[in-house]
This record gives sequence, structure tokens and C-alpha cells, in this order.
Amino acid sequence: MPLSVAVAGASGYAGGELLRLLADHPDFVVTTVTAFSNAGQPLIAAQPHLRSLAHLTLVDTTPENLAGHDVVFLALPHGKSGAITAQLPEGTLVIDCGADHRLTSEQDWADFYGGDFFGAWTYGLPELVHADGSKQRDELVGATRIAVPGCNVTAITLGLAPGIQSGLLEPTDIVAVLAVGPSGAGKALKPELLASELMGSASAYGVGGVHRHTPEIRQNLAVAGGVGVTVSFTPVLVPMSRGILATSTAKLAPGATAASVRAAFENAYADEPFVHLLPAGQFPRTADTVGANVALIGLAVDEAAGRVVTITAIDNLVKGTAGAAVQSANLALGLAESAGLSVNGVAP
Amino acid sequence: MPLSVAVAGASGYAGGELLRLLADHPDFVVTTVTAFSNAGQPLIAAQPHLRSLAHLTLVDTTPENLAGHDVVFLALPHGKSGAITAQLPEGTLVIDCGADHRLTSEQDWADFYGGDFFGAWTYGLPELVHADGSKQRDELVGATRIAVPGCNVTAITLGLAPGIQSGLLEPTDIVAVLAVGPSGAGKALKPELLASELMGSASAYGVGGVHRHTPEIRQNLAVAGGVGVTVSFTPVLVPMSRGILATSTAKLAPGATAASVRAAFENAYADEPFVHLLPAGQFPRTADTVGANVALIGLAVDEAAGRVVTITAIDNLVKGTAGAAVQSANLALGLAESAGLSVNGVAP
Amino acid sequence: MPLSVAVAGASGYAGGELLRLLADHPDFVVTTVTAFSNAGQPLIAAQPHLRSLAHLTLVDTTPENLAGHDVVFLALPHGKSGAITAQLPEGTLVIDCGADHRLTSEQDWADFYGGDFFGAWTYGLPELVHADGSKQRDELVGATRIAVPGCNVTAITLGLAPGIQSGLLEPTDIVAVLAVGPSGAGKALKPELLASELMGSASAYGVGGVHRHTPEIRQNLAVAGGVGVTVSFTPVLVPMSRGILATSTAKLAPGATAASVRAAFENAYADEPFVHLLPAGQFPRTADTVGANVALIGLAVDEAAGRVVTITAIDNLVKGTAGAAVQSANLALGLAESAGLSVNGVAP
Amino acid sequence: MPLSVAVAGASGYAGGELLRLLADHPDFVVTTVTAFSNAGQPLIAAQPHLRSLAHLTLVDTTPENLAGHDVVFLALPHGKSGAITAQLPEGTLVIDCGADHRLTSEQDWADFYGGDFFGAWTYGLPELVHADGSKQRDELVGATRIAVPGCNVTAITLGLAPGIQSGLLEPTDIVAVLAVGPSGAGKALKPELLASELMGSASAYGVGGVHRHTPEIRQNLAVAGGVGVTVSFTPVLVPMSRGILATSTAKLAPGATAASVRAAFENAYADEPFVHLLPAGQFPRTADTVGANVALIGLAVDEAAGRVVTITAIDNLVKGTAGAAVQSANLALGLAESAGLSVNGVAP
Repeated sequence: MPLSVAVAGASGYAGGELLRLLADHPDFVVTTVTAFSNAGQPLIAAQPHLRSLAHLTLVDTTPENLAGHDVVFLALPHGKSGAITAQLPEGTLVIDCGADHRLTSEQDWADFYGGDFFGAWTYGLPELVHADGSKQRDELVGATRIAVPGCNVTAITLGLAPGIQSGLLEPTDIVAVLAVGPSGAGKALKPELLASELMGSASAYGVGGVHRHTPEIRQNLAVAGGVGVTVSFTPVLVPMSRGILATSTAKLAPGATAASVRAAFENAYADEPFVHLLPAGQFPRTADTVGANVALIGLAVDEAAGRVVTITAIDNLVKGTAGAAVQSANLALGLAESAGLSVNGVAP
Repeated sequence: MPLSVAVAGASGYAGGELLRLLADHPDFVVTTVTAFSNAGQPLIAAQPHLRSLAHLTLVDTTPENLAGHDVVFLALPHGKSGAITAQLPEGTLVIDCGADHRLTSEQDWADFYGGDFFGAWTYGLPELVHADGSKQRDELVGATRIAVPGCNVTAITLGLAPGIQSGLLEPTDIVAVLAVGPSGAGKALKPELLASELMGSASAYGVGGVHRHTPEIRQNLAVAGGVGVTVSFTPVLVPMSRGILATSTAKLAPGATAASVRAAFENAYADEPFVHLLPAGQFPRTADTVGANVALIGLAVDEAAGRVVTITAIDNLVKGTAGAAVQSANLALGLAESAGLSVNGVAP
Repeated sequence: MPLSVAVAGASGYAGGELLRLLADHPDFVVTTVTAFSNAGQPLIAAQPHLRSLAHLTLVDTTPENLAGHDVVFLALPHGKSGAITAQLPEGTLVIDCGADHRLTSEQDWADFYGGDFFGAWTYGLPELVHADGSKQRDELVGATRIAVPGCNVTAITLGLAPGIQSGLLEPTDIVAVLAVGPSGAGKALKPELLASELMGSASAYGVGGVHRHTPEIRQNLAVAGGVGVTVSFTPVLVPMSRGILATSTAKLAPGATAASVRAAFENAYADEPFVHLLPAGQFPRTADTVGANVALIGLAVDEAAGRVVTITAIDNLVKGTAGAAVQSANLALGLAESAGLSVNGVAP
Repeated sequence: MPLSVAVAGASGYAGGELLRLLADHPDFVVTTVTAFSNAGQPLIAAQPHLRSLAHLTLVDTTPENLAGHDVVFLALPHGKSGAITAQLPEGTLVIDCGADHRLTSEQDWADFYGGDFFGAWTYGLPELVHADGSKQRDELVGATRIAVPGCNVTAITLGLAPGIQSGLLEPTDIVAVLAVGPSGAGKALKPELLASELMGSASAYGVGGVHRHTPEIRQNLAVAGGVGVTVSFTPVLVPMSRGILATSTAKLAPGATAASVRAAFENAYADEPFVHLLPAGQFPRTADTVGANVALIGLAVDEAAGRVVTITAIDNLVKGTAGAAVQSANLALGLAESAGLSVNGVAP
């Protein structure tokens, strides 16, 4: 019998993508969808592409409506899930796609988010390599509270962690610049997200170390063994609905070679179903990841500059959010890790 | 009486943009347009947007056809202009938009381009600040042979040179990642430039220090006073026809502060008609530069990462190529520097 | 001495395009810019691409602020200009880019707009051919109140009027479908105008004869001599910031031939500076009109279907709005009709 | 045990989409992929988004390589499949996505395609309503040779056939204008398909009744009962990789009403899994169909113009090609009609 699922924040982009994946998942059935201002509407009014879920109606996002399910997925704005999740039964598997439960440092939370600190949950990035060589996957088995990483964070972390863990890349002076689509910013009605403004244009935001994903990147690379991690991180908004292409670069540690760095990444990801290292000389396109729960990584060494450059492509709504949530849920529940998830993108 | 102008390579994107600007220039009249495979066609067949030049016909790109003009603009593939320009009269002003005359180092040419080395011409980036505080503009007055910079190079150079020249930014370990539109790659029929491939997708190319613009960036920052310049440079192709958004970052030198760095840039660009430093906290969009001969620069200091990040937006075909060519020609000929050039973009 | 100009609604897309054109117009100087909610801001905050007008500050849209100029351009939402223009001095040239003064029929106004009816002004489409073969241009000379046509209307009218006027096309059963960019809908914060929604998607709106431009199309084709005009008009929103591509089709009248229809269009537009009929077999792209005050028309006859099909490309913000306004002002004031206007698009 | 499948033309867009669908199909396993110039390459080189099929290598497109499979899908250029399919065993299910076997009239083939005429196969549009009220689905059961419709044809046919079949729409003087993405044109290296040319631009092609899909539209509407069908059909290329939005319009027959027309469409499609009529006042977006085997139809009646307007959205590569092929194969083989197919689009 399939497990019953509720999705909170079902009218937004992350919520919509969760539903798209869950609709075809063999072990789940979505029975409740919630929203704030859109409550009362049919789901199809907010998500006209989810034809198979046309029978669902959005209800209010309350602990009462979310109770009584086997799994609850939350796709709420930052700061909105903490209060709600505190009221959900302990035995329910709760997966939060927001930021409220990602950061372990209360100081980081205060510096970059502010408001009540809710504490960190088990981190939903199974492929994150730890300093001791283990993977985050191990911690997800049996977890009942899971925090899904930020989308930019996932791309940078996957593109650097094996190099940090192996000691071949310097954890200090990391620089990452990401081309990102606007769906990561949600459906908020902001002038800078209008199509007329964005089409044919690229622009940076959160420049100079102020983007909220910054401490989470440092946190992950510290988990991978980095000491004194510093990262200059700049997201650049570009005209594509979905996708993140992260250009992540770090200095080669003394003694590191192109071959040894590549070997470290190969070693880390050889058996990963959803993280694929491309052969030398090949670099990914975001188009190849659209709709897929996959991260594609290309790697080059710039000897003259003394830096490794990795290019990581993900779909911000899938491996960057909803796919990571489903993958983590699969692991937590002992299902097949890849249930309901595809590695094939919708291209062109 | 207007000066007569020939444009070689008039069927391509750079050639088309030269013609668009020249068509409205008060001091020039285009009398000859040349091409290779398109010779014999009406110009309007190759450039259907240039309605005011519908009377022109493309002729072969030969020294004979280019002779007898006051000014010759070349927009030819790399390696194609050197042989031709050697046969043009010394008194003719020749502006080359290609790479053949940019690099001063024959070794760099051999390493990144190969083939015959033609030697460097006067470099067409008027706003490039030299180590002694002078500007490249001075060298352009009266010049008869001018090499227009590469478009990526212009964006990075303008976004870093004042910091290097002032000694406030370290010239070593520079990292630059650029979001670029495909028009910079020209009209070449390559699968990766097809609309179906590019729309909705971002991808990197020339990763790992192999892009041909790399030595030119180092050359410029050396002119600005940088010693031992290293740069990790990665261009990312994004779905917009025109535009470059350069995220350029360098380490703060000891003693440098956010205020001192900003002051250095303000000092360098305060009187520049075509390079505008935005107020603190503001960052440019490429859309604001479309069709305009302008570079817009935003600047932030990331104290935690110890890096300055500048965001520079240009239209790759205007300030990145054709506008720089016209601006340089204006300077060389003693015309108003801004003749035929606008700072207002076509947005949205 | 240049004429002083005020632009009302200067923070929107139509207002911005007016300013871009006026900034380079030899006979005008913009001294006042007005807005509603953005009043008090520097113009550059709302229009970051208009670098040459960075000295201007937005003031309130009031009759007082608009008084005392030689020319007033209005780019206000429908229904907002009527009350204001009633208070402007009679001698001032007033050009309204909104709908308030376009329709001659109060019934049409009531049916499609509603609210107060302000009466029609001189219609700002110089190339509209009248039933008697004259052009609308004649009526614009010396006019002091001018209504700029709707952008969709301009494209369809120019693409059909010569055929109607010549009696070679049936005025009944016209069908027009337009691919339009979202800038025509303005900067309004509507979910369906978000970049994530629009990129990669096409959608129709105003389907079934309810779009407000419908009566204006009928009105124009009646001016051209059409009796009993009916038009099925469907705009389709597509992912490009600017541009309209109108596919307009009408039945061949008895005796009409491909040659006679083409001759009628050639006859109508041969001397027009801003409306260009393309040779047989050629059809325009909107890209070729970006930023240009030009309408490009391709024409084909489908013998099997008994219909003429014309393809008309314009930039909705230029020939569709701001360029038409400037062209009309030029005519009204006895300036060169093409002053401040270009026929060359910004492509690619 | 899954059925073995070969896909010919596996390096193109239609072939890639077939493979994407087949990779997740419960009853099929792809064992052979063929190509012309790309033969010898790994499939992943041509289709980097199909990560789960990275083990396959492209082989030559020959009858020998295609023999020995339970099902053969062909995604070849027009004129290329006829000769090959003639050599495949009769018992093999062969599904041709090209045009070679669509037209029943040799004259139409000669007029619009030319070359050898191969004769029509069972037509792969299950939802096509016949004059007698039956559906094309019935003919597909047990078929061994199936011709998949043209993508534009599918959109127009589904948007009009119930109205024609019911006699409520006139079959004469149909007008259809389609916004189409460039993936329908394949990976051909043509200048007009370059990203720089297409982004930010709309353009028409095949104007005036010359597009090859024209006779197939007439053929289908004749099957639906239309006598003397005429259609003016104009495709407009717009900047989105995938998608067709068809605006199809026909005159109301005497006595037809808005209610009766809607009832005819509801009646035709109420039980269809893949063709959905939207409620009155709602119109589809192509984004909602991306990757999905679905056609979404909105319908309006324009009383003033005397025309019905339907808006049909499909993904040209799915319901327009590869999805229709899989759906037809499912029917032919007695599998669940929806096996391997989703109705949920990948949006935004």
C-alpha cells in the first residue's frame, strides 16, 4: 500500500516539482496539498501542468491539515516551516525544502537569516563526502527529520567536496560563480523577475558575500574536512526557467596534480546513481539535467592559474530541491534510493 | 565631407554591428562592404536589419577592394586580417576587430592562436589605465593601426584595472567567470550554437585556462601595473543573443579597504563617458547595455572572503567590439570621442 | 533651440522607449518626467538603461507638472490620460500613447473599455491609407492632439489596409494571429508575466474577440474603405521581450490576383520611409525591427485557400508605440518626419 | 519479458525523445540505436541528457541492424524511411515518425514532397474522430505499420476535428497559425536556426500554403467528415526549444452555437487520457505540456467574427512525435495505452 503524503506550499515552484515527482512515484500517494493565499483553489489552477493531480484541492497550511500522513514535504518560504514542524508527530517523516533546519550554527542563522533558530536536521545531500570518507547517505537511513540543501549549495558542494576531502584542494579562497534560472527565486511578484526584464539579460545578485547560501557552503565543506573554509560566491541570474551551472574553483594544494584530483572525484562518485563525473575535456549543460535528479560535473585543472575548475550542472528544482527531497525520503524509509527519480533530462 | 569607410567581414555579427553604428555616424559614410562566401549578395540579404544600407552589395574581401578609403574596419576571423592589412596603404586608418594584432608576446600568440605572428597594434581600449596613471586613450590619438580588444577581455579588464593600478588588488589569483551570449561566437554553423541547444541552457567552454582571451587579460593587467598576473577565466554561454556579464574577483591587498578600492575605481572612471561605476549596492544588467557603447560596473567587497568582486556588463558587439572600434577611430581621427555612439541601451 | 518635452508615465516601458528616442532627437529636449508610484525617484532607478538621462528625477503626474512644455507625451494606463489632458493648454502638442483617444465610436469604447469616453483625437498612423487613396499623414500636419495606435492594431492595419483600400481583399472574415512579446503588457506585476512562466512557453490571451484592440482594427480598415469589416484577432504571448509578428489573412476578392495584390501594397508603401514591403518569397523577423521605427511586411497568396497572408514585423515599443508617437510629433510640428528615428534594427 | 526495440535516427531530436520515453517504459528495452553520420559514436555523445542509456553505441541505419527486434521506431528525415522499411519483416511492428507513410494521396505526395511514393500506413493519431463518430484508435489495434502524424498537423487536427465531425464548423476557409519551437526543424545546421538569430525573434516560414503539412491537415479533416476542406496554415518560429501553440479557427456553421460547439468537443474528448478540453475561458500554455504526452485545448466562440477559435498546446516532440509513436505502439501491441507516458508537464 502506498504511503500517504502531504505537500505544504503546493502552489509554488518547489511544491509543484515535488508533486510532479511524487505523482509518478511507485510508493507514495499524495493526499493533501496545502497553500497560504491559494488555499481553497483547485491545485490545477496553480499548477496547470499537473494534469494527473487535477482532483486535488489546496487547503490551508496548518499542522492539523498536515497531520495524519506518513510523509510530509514542506516547500515553504524561509522562516515558515519551523513553527509548523514543531507540531507534527515525531514518527512522521518530515522533509523540509526550506532553510529553517539547514544550518548547525546559530550564529550563521542570526547573521544570514535572523528570527527564531530552529536547529539543524539531518542534511539531505546523500552524496556529501565526509572528512572520514563516509557519505551523508548513512545518516539519512531511518531519519525522521530531513533538511534539503539549498540549490546553489548543492551544486557547489558536489563540485568541490571530494577535492577538499582528499586534501588536494585548498579550502581557503574558494571562488564560485553560478548561472541560475529564476525559478529558484519562486513565484514572488518582483519587478526584476518579470519576463521583459530577464529575457535577453544577465545580472548578479547577492554580491559580496551576502547571499544566504554562503554559510551553508562553508558548513558542507567543513563536513568534508575543510579547515578555515572561505568562499566568494556570486549567483548570476540568466534567462532560463530552470537550471544551475556552477563554476567552482579552488587552489591546488601542494603536490596535487590533475590526475590525482580527477581520481579523487572519480573515487567519490563512481558508484553514485545521481552524481556523474564527465570524462576529461567534457563539461555539462544545464539542459541535460532538466527534470532529472542528476548532477553532472566536468573538471579541469588550470596549471597556469594553479586552480581546479569544476562545472556542475543541476536542475535547481530537482537535484537542487524536490528530487533531493524524494531521494532523501527514499533513503529514510528504506525504499529504493532511485524510486520515482530519473537521470534522463528533458532536452532539447 | 564625411570620411569614406570600408567594412571587411560585413556579413557577420561584428561586421553588422559596425555597419549599424556607422550608418548613423555623422562623420562617416560606408561605401564598401566585403565578405568571403557571401560576396556578390546584397548586404540586406545577410543583414536584414540594416534597412538604411540596402543599397550596398557585398564584394570580395581583397586588399584592392579595401584600398582607397579613409578608414577600413576589419571584422574577420582570427588569422585572416594580418595578410590583408599588410597590403593596405600606411596612411589609411585601419581598425582590426580580430585578434591578429592584439598580443605583444609572440609566445602568447604561438601558445593560444598559432600561425603567423603579425605583431601588436595600438590597443583600442581608451579607458585602460596604465601603471603610471595615464590612460590608453593618449596612445590612440593619431594612430593609424588599431587592434580592438576581445570582448571578454574588455569586460574583465575594465572591472579590475583600477584596482590593480592602485595596488589595492592582488594581481595574482584573479578569478573571472563570464555569462556570455552566443553572438560573440559569430554565425558559424556549429551544433552547440543551435537555438534548440542553447535556449533554456547554460554551459561553459574553454574551461581550465585554455580560452584564447586569457593572455590578453594578463597583458592588460600588466599594463595596469600588475606583476605576476594569474587569472582563472571561464566563459559560460547563456541564452541571450548579446551581452557579457563578467564577475571578476581579486584578493584585497594588505591595507586595502572597501572605501579605498571604491575610490580607486571612482577616480579612474569619474570622467569616462563610456565606463560608469554604479553606486555601492547596485549591480548592472546586460540588458541595460544592449546596443550601447557602455560598460557598467558594480563593485562589492567580501570581507569574509578577502576579495573584491566586480560585476561588469557590456554589449559584446558594441563596447566589446564595434563600439570600441568606432570610439577608437574617433580618437585616432580627432573627432568627438562619442560621435555615433550612444550610452543608452535598448531595454527591455 | 530645441523644443521642451514632458513625458508622463516615464517609469514604464512605453515611457522608457519614448525617452530613449527623445534623448537622441535633434529637436527635442526632455525637461520633465512624471510617474505615479515612482515619483520622487531618480529616473535612472526606474530606467537603468537610460544613462544619458541620469540627471532627471521623476515628479508626480499632474497637469501642473506637465504644463509649460512645447510637447507632452503621455504613456499612461488606459483611462488615465483623459482627465489630465483636458487640463493641458490647447496650444501644447499632446501625444497620447494610451487608448483614451483612439476610438471614434462611443459604443465601441463602452463595449471594450468602459468608463468615461474622451473622444477621438487625430490618429497617429501616418501610413494608414484612406478609402480615397490619401494617407493619414495629411491629417497629422499641424495637429495638436494625437492618439497613438495600439501596437497590435498597427501591425494588422499596415498588413491589410492597402488590400482593403484597393478592393482586392475582402473586408469580411479577416483573421489575424499575432506573436507578441510581453513588454506590450507593461511592468505590471502579474504572475503570468513572470520570467519563469513565460520563458519556453507560448500562450494565447484575449481569445474569442474580446481583446480591446479589436474595434480599433475594424475602425482602421473601415477608414481604408472596408465595409462590414469582421476580424478574428488572437494575440499569442511568446518568449521575447519586444516585438510583434502579425500573421494577417483575408480572402481574395473576385478578380484579385497575386500580382494585383502585391502591386497594391507596393503602390501604397513604395515611398514610405518606415513601412517596407519585402520582395516576394521573403518574410520578416521581429529581430530586424528591434529599436527601429519600421514595419516590415512580407506577402504571399495562398491560391488553394483563396487567401492573402501578410506577415508584419514591428517593435511594439517603437513603430508600435513610442516611434509612432515621435513620428507623429515630427509631422505635427513640421519637422523632418524621420528626425530621431532609425530604420535599422538592433540584431542579432 | 520486455520487448526489444530499435530506434533509427537516434542522434536527432525526435530520436532522442523516443529514447527518453522508451528508457522508462515498463514493457520495452532499447537494444539498438542507429544513425547516419554519427554511427560509431556512443549514444551519450549525441544525446548527453540520456544518462541511463550511456551503454548504447550508435550503429549504421541499415535494414540488417534494424532486423530482429519486436518493435522498430524510425525517426529519419522525410524520404529516408520508405526504402528501409520495405526490407523489414512483416511481423515486426514498425512505427515511422517521418512523413513517408502519412499521405493517402499520391498527388499530394508529389505536390508537397516529391520522389518515390511509399503509400499510407495506419495513421497514429488515436484521438482522431472519424465522420462516423468512431476513433482512429480502433484502427491501431493490431496494426504492424504505423505512420506518426506531423506535429503541426496533430495540433490543428485535434483542435478542429470534433467541430468538423459534428457539422458545427465549416470545413472551408479554415485558418490556423502556429507558434512553434525550432526543435521541430531538427538539428540541421541552418543559419536561421542559430540561437543568436532565433532568441528574441519571431518569424514565419512556409507562408502561403506551401508548408508540407498542409495536405495532411486536409486529409485528417476529411476523415472527420469535412467536405471541400481548405486551410490557410502558417507556422511562426518563436524562441522556445519545444512546443506548439496552434490557433485554429473555423467559421460557425448555420445553427451552431457556443454551447453546441463546446458540447461536441466535450463529447469527443471526455474520456481521452491524453487530450484535455479546458473549461470555458481557459487557454493552455505550451509550458504545461513539456515532456508530456498531452494536448490541451481551449475553445472560444467569437460571435462578432462568426468563428470558433481553439488554442491547442502540445509538446511537438512528445504528443507531436515520440509520445504519439509510443502511444500508438502501446495500442498496436495491446499494452496499456498510457504505458510509459505522462500527462504532467515539466514546468516552469
